[in-house]
Amino acid sequence: MRNPDEVLRPQGAPLRGQTGGDAYARAGVDIEAGNAAVERYGDITSTWRHPMQLGAIGGFSGLFEMPGDPKRALVASTDGVGTKILIASQARRYATAGADLVNHCVNDILVVNATPLFFLDYLAVGRLDAEVAGELVAGVQRACRAHDCALLGGETAEMPGLYQPDHFDLAGTIVGMVERDTIPDRSRVVPGDAIVGLPSVGLHTNGYSLARNLIPPEMWDEPFPAAGAGTTFVDALLAEHPSYYRAVRAIGAVASVKAMSHITGGGLPGNVPRTLPENCKAVFEQSRWSVPALITELVARGNLQHDERYRTFNMGIGFTLVVPLADGGKAVGAWPGAKIVGWVETRQAGEPAVIVHPPRD
Amino acid sequence: MRNPDEVLRPQGAPLRGQTGGDAYARAGVDIEAGNAAVERYGDITSTWRHPMQLGAIGGFSGLFEMPGDPKRALVASTDGVGTKILIASQARRYATAGADLVNHCVNDILVVNATPLFFLDYLAVGRLDAEVAGELVAGVQRACRAHDCALLGGETAEMPGLYQPDHFDLAGTIVGMVERDTIPDRSRVVPGDAIVGLPSVGLHTNGYSLARNLIPPEMWDEPFPAAGAGTTFVDALLAEHPSYYRAVRAIGAVASVKAMSHITGGGLPGNVPRTLPENCKAVFEQSRWSVPALITELVARGNLQHDERYRTFNMGIGFTLVVPLADGGKAVGAWPGAKIVGWVETRQAGEPAVIVHPPRD
Repeated sequence: MRNPDEVLRPQGAPLRGQTGGDAYARAGVDIEAGNAAVERYGDITSTWRHPMQLGAIGGFSGLFEMPGDPKRALVASTDGVGTKILIASQARRYATAGADLVNHCVNDILVVNATPLFFLDYLAVGRLDAEVAGELVAGVQRACRAHDCALLGGETAEMPGLYQPDHFDLAGTIVGMVERDTIPDRSRVVPGDAIVGLPSVGLHTNGYSLARNLIPPEMWDEPFPAAGAGTTFVDALLAEHPSYYRAVRAIGAVASVKAMSHITGGGLPGNVPRTLPENCKAVFEQSRWSVPALITELVARGNLQHDERYRTFNMGIGFTLVVPLADGGKAVGAWPGAKIVGWVETRQAGEPAVIVHPPRD
Repeated sequence: MRNPDEVLRPQGAPLRGQTGGDAYARAGVDIEAGNAAVERYGDITSTWRHPMQLGAIGGFSGLFEMPGDPKRALVASTDGVGTKILIASQARRYATAGADLVNHCVNDILVVNATPLFFLDYLAVGRLDAEVAGELVAGVQRACRAHDCALLGGETAEMPGLYQPDHFDLAGTIVGMVERDTIPDRSRVVPGDAIVGLPSVGLHTNGYSLARNLIPPEMWDEPFPAAGAGTTFVDALLAEHPSYYRAVRAIGAVASVKAMSHITGGGLPGNVPRTLPENCKAVFEQSRWSVPALITELVARGNLQHDERYRTFNMGIGFTLVVPLADGGKAVGAWPGAKIVGWVETRQAGEPAVIVHPPRD
């Protein structure tokens, strides 16, 4: 994304699964078409802009001036669970998809420091099974309640011609609120700042097209002890996308947070630059954190090279916060698992915006 | 719906395509499962309710107290285009789906008199084609702009395992605003009030599972002159779901509007009672309006009996407004095509909430 502030279709870029490099192409996802669509969306939305629409930051969410209160903004984001739901439907495990969806959306608006207000879900099914639909919506409600966020509505559509009988799609929209003077100001980011990382627990909601190729259904019930005693591959594949809400609030209470990123499709290289100034790059030291066992397994099975693995998977970091170096210690002390995972450095013309130094073997 | 105010999953009831009676069962849509799911959603959402969530009226949208301004409410609704998109994708005609979606959502929040603020779309595809995605999103943007509504964001997901290559699903969420003292108060509805109807232009976004059975693809390009010179069946099938925003504003400026309904899945019997008091029934005289040619054709082809046709299709009325009888003349004078289509009468115990008197043959 060349200039995040001017992309008026925030979550359009990157498209889910559009930034994974060769690995994604191998899984049947078309990156060129994705880039072309994003460009087209930019053309379309640039034809007219509502006067109360505010500049988006990094494209994780859209901002709209609060009617009657220009010091506040409403913050909204729409997302889906992606092809992770194909694993859920095939394994007939419906308990976690709701939280995957809500937590993904919560993290997207958290990037601008927003607090969730309400959520609406969209559930489309091939054949409506009240038990399954109930379990999915119960998961949405649980994750909403955990954030004091109203489940304000939803649509359930039975569309036999569009979805196979046991298939479903689950998407949702979150609306939150932020005091505008508390939105992180990435223009304050300077070389020397520390990058705090919050640990991921697996793939979250990205990389599943490839993961389904590398770990086919016949393996799902096999033990996968690397991810924990008694764990199977399908347990690891369906691990719930965590919410970083409490962690970010705890860190924000003790440290000056200048920029945040939710590490979704595109990984660290695809997401961190979206909230950095043009003259800065993020340099990560992978020896500073551990990679979830499932991702290590997928990297080995797919023989994914450095760039591919970092663009396809989160590689162990689910959310990043840029803080002044002096605040780094306080920040990591405020939340278990938070670690300093890299630094901001000056970016020269032609340099990539993200560099990851691999651990020494 | 027994008690609309207590259903906390507003758009969950009625489920799209769940209220069409035998005709829908014939098209493969399961009404019992729909009712069971709605009941389950009620159980789930009744476990916890956000204190700023307001009572929904009729279940067309959800209401949330405006932060910092208790006299206003945010109004939100999520919907999809339904299986109408299967016709659009098979016919490769993508221009109208965006407006179908946005206008449907606008009408849903219009029932509580809300003005649109912003919209977010969700587009899921089997194989991303930038041309097609661009055309769909351009339609969304056009319909948003027509309502001075920001297209604040969206998600485009390519999911080859879930959707067939040329298939897509399109859903969206609207957020609007209302001054709470301008929300229609259905407790003011009394026997003798007039019901103003706004004309439909075809199926809008409901009844397509059955319509696709009765008018199969090989007929789509055949002329269908009953719907207008030069019109084909597919033209009539894809006629754009209209927005009633301007009509409702024009009528509201001259008449006291006590209740409104958007005639979606379930038709007049499924939607009008959602905004009437328990002691009132709506009595319609079908001789007072004309039925779109496409619906007349479908009724004949399916040999649909009275109840079936009114529960499956809108039968020519897309939106209703209840006004005092004395305001009826002013109301219909305020918008071309608006007609008095029925009256509110006292409902005795055991009586249906909607009665439609058919025209004499």
